[in-house]
Amino acid sequence: MHRPPLKHCRVCGTAVVYRLPDDGDTKLRAVCPACNTVHYENPLNVVGTVPVWGDDGGQVLLCKRNIEPRWGKWTLPAGFMELGETAAQGAARETDEEAGARFEMQGLFAVMNVVRVGQVHLFYRARLLGTEFNPGHETIEARLFTESEIPWDEIAFKTVKETLERYFADRRQGRFGFHEVDIV
Amino acid sequence: MHRPPLKHCRVCGTAVVYRLPDDGDTKLRAVCPACNTVHYENPLNVVGTVPVWGDDGGQVLLCKRNIEPRWGKWTLPAGFMELGETAAQGAARETDEEAGARFEMQGLFAVMNVVRVGQVHLFYRARLLGTEFNPGHETIEARLFTESEIPWDEIAFKTVKETLERYFADRRQGRFGFHEVDIV
Repeated sequence: MHRPPLKHCRVCGTAVVYRLPDDGDTKLRAVCPACNTVHYENPLNVVGTVPVWGDDGGQVLLCKRNIEPRWGKWTLPAGFMELGETAAQGAARETDEEAGARFEMQGLFAVMNVVRVGQVHLFYRARLLGTEFNPGHETIEARLFTESEIPWDEIAFKTVKETLERYFADRRQGRFGFHEVDIV
Repeated sequence: MHRPPLKHCRVCGTAVVYRLPDDGDTKLRAVCPACNTVHYENPLNVVGTVPVWGDDGGQVLLCKRNIEPRWGKWTLPAGFMELGETAAQGAARETDEEAGARFEMQGLFAVMNVVRVGQVHLFYRARLLGTEFNPGHETIEARLFTESEIPWDEIAFKTVKETLERYFADRRQGRFGFHEVDIV
């Protein structure tokens, strides 16, 4: 949904041409033949949390998606980082919007490169402060799962599955690390 | 240089209007009145390295900028992350382009939110494999600095200064952590 092909200049509306810019750049860019604006396209950040409950973090909050893609599948709260916020602020905002949870933010847990779609996903751990959830319109249901209850075959995205696997592996070891993962 | 104001639709070239989209979104977006495309603008990632030399990592490679902004000031090798690469691959590419160094990548060292300009900077540690540098056209000179030699008043960007300060502080403690910093 995010980036339809760039065909016209964002400054003046003229149809662009794809060529090497004149500044020594080695990548094809959309260049405006009228006003010479060079249009760059770069990866986007998706920010979210692993919200956990219990002194030992034994339960994780998942949200059942009420939107496409993957309607009806379970996900961690996450979404595109916005201008005007830090990555952690964006992750907290998404957790509020999608789960309506009370929580406190903890450390950065995982950075996932999803090169195929031009995204970097950043997940923070978050400690839930209660078990009442008030999810927004993007979520059918928000509920807690122990490791054995996680619906592994109904997880919406590979990034979420990989993050959950690492969370529970770290928990078994009694120590939460930082994980960098390339999703292929 | 990166993002001139969006005035025209990237799909059809029609002048956009800024309004709330129809999908429940709560932020003003550039919406095309002709083809209804919603244009999102999101933070961009800048990726780079802290390239160090010596068994104890006592020397850091800095590059003297041959481009604006901050022509003539010193920086760590870094630049905008591109589509088709991971954050670490982008950081390695920039290190090659700007310093022409031989190195091996190490762990993610710092994530810096620069909210004011809509950027997230990710710096990796990198271990130099030699002291011959062959910088590209963006760099006047690439050279190694010990902590006491760092030209603190001639550092190009606050993100670079903050990263260097944390690198040397960690080095004094004999242990490199991961740092998340909000640049205000």
